[in-house]
Amino acid sequence: MSVRHLAVIGLGLIGGSFARALRAAGEVGRISGFDPEQRQRDDAMRCGVIDEVFETAAAAVRGADLVILAVPVLHTAEALEACLPGLKTGAVVSDVGSTKQSVLREVAQVCGGALPGWFVAGHPIAGTEKSGVANSFAEMFRGHRVILTPHAAQDGTAKAMVVRAWQAVGGRVVEMDAASHDAIFAATSHLPHLIAYSFVDMLTRQPQGAELFANAGGGFRDFTRIASSSPQMWHDIVRANADAVGALLDRQIDELVQIRQMMREARWDELRALFERARAAREQYLTQIE
Amino acid sequence: MSVRHLAVIGLGLIGGSFARALRAAGEVGRISGFDPEQRQRDDAMRCGVIDEVFETAAAAVRGADLVILAVPVLHTAEALEACLPGLKTGAVVSDVGSTKQSVLREVAQVCGGALPGWFVAGHPIAGTEKSGVANSFAEMFRGHRVILTPHAAQDGTAKAMVVRAWQAVGGRVVEMDAASHDAIFAATSHLPHLIAYSFVDMLTRQPQGAELFANAGGGFRDFTRIASSSPQMWHDIVRANADAVGALLDRQIDELVQIRQMMREARWDELRALFERARAAREQYLTQIE
Repeated sequence: MSVRHLAVIGLGLIGGSFARALRAAGEVGRISGFDPEQRQRDDAMRCGVIDEVFETAAAAVRGADLVILAVPVLHTAEALEACLPGLKTGAVVSDVGSTKQSVLREVAQVCGGALPGWFVAGHPIAGTEKSGVANSFAEMFRGHRVILTPHAAQDGTAKAMVVRAWQAVGGRVVEMDAASHDAIFAATSHLPHLIAYSFVDMLTRQPQGAELFANAGGGFRDFTRIASSSPQMWHDIVRANADAVGALLDRQIDELVQIRQMMREARWDELRALFERARAAREQYLTQIE
Repeated sequence: MSVRHLAVIGLGLIGGSFARALRAAGEVGRISGFDPEQRQRDDAMRCGVIDEVFETAAAAVRGADLVILAVPVLHTAEALEACLPGLKTGAVVSDVGSTKQSVLREVAQVCGGALPGWFVAGHPIAGTEKSGVANSFAEMFRGHRVILTPHAAQDGTAKAMVVRAWQAVGGRVVEMDAASHDAIFAATSHLPHLIAYSFVDMLTRQPQGAELFANAGGGFRDFTRIASSSPQMWHDIVRANADAVGALLDRQIDELVQIRQMMREARWDELRALFERARAAREQYLTQIE
């Protein structure tokens, strides 16, 4: 058994799925949990995701060997701070946040200015557009990448416990530095969410209104799926990774302005060539993931 | 049987699926076909999608009661022109193009300046990102909307034959004027394709290159799915509907510029409110399609 006692702080889609998955793998003894929302606490108990729920984070982590912080990323440090009074010596703490430089910086702040050896920064590349512990499921991480972004002070034993737990739930653990992580996910995840939200919001101001949506097909449904994601969570992510996302957004705006210019000047062959480049790149991507 | 003899001009994803579906419904006698590409002609015969293939459109439509033009939308009028020498009196011709004002305008041009009563403009809201007759399937249109955009000269009997055929393959036929159609699909289909292509193309110029794609998750996959669509087909659509798409692209660029400004000025509550509006609109859309 990898973890005798797991505490999950943030009983949402990811925290709930991690608890379910570790239990299903037979790799955890007891699971305690905390969430600031009564509804998530109730759902987590009703769905049997955790064994015991607490009214504070400090109470939930008491005696835990592994604590997973699964909260909107800007609340990670605050959640850790709330846990500190209850953490036992030797407890390992990890997170699941979608940005990593901000987490490492803020965790250092609440730990007296330096990163503690027992903190392991992680990010499972998994999820759905749904929110809440009631939507969690044990298969969430099977075959998915889990990025760890090690820091200089990190304990080898702490990392080993986190790696073992993610492998137990089917994750493929990969390491990279936090800055690379943030640049890569700004491009493949954060900017697409921002664009999808922005596109749907723009449509709501069109004169056809509801008629537009009534006539939307499968392309629209998939393109906008991520605009159904949690606004709080994505607000946190864009804000925490604002430099990288902003730089890419500038490039995206430039590219759209160039396309508009091609259309105005009837440079259709250039537009088709752009479509062809994009299609080739995506087909290449598909061969990588299959 | 709705159609004694169907001719399919353009043996691709949509033309092939229509042929398969009408056959599966027992609503067609004989199916002839033409495609300028040898490969599609061979695939259509090998897959049993059509009964006989011809080297020219005029030969393929000889004796046909219903001719479906299923070609990239800018080639619709040219395809019709190629059919004219073979069309029998009383034959009905329809199309499946994603833009309708340009089709009506160009069909009138090749028919001596006026729209003929036997032409029925149509657009099934169905498809996948795949291309080619080998990817066609009979269930393509089941439960999907099929838009017809009637014109003043259109024969009632011609329309009735087209409506019956689409209903036979499971389509839900809806009528609207061509200008409304083009505005609606610019918003829900054409602009999303343009943005998806543009986003993937922008990423190909990022320094991380292949590493980006290796770390892309499910959100990226769905958001960019439509960037795997046929570049020729989407070039034609954007070009044929350039006014409507261009006007919306201007609004999208404005919205992204405003978001960039919110990020620069740390107006995070506004950004979260925008995400919330978008999510609410998409959830509303989901209740409409379910």
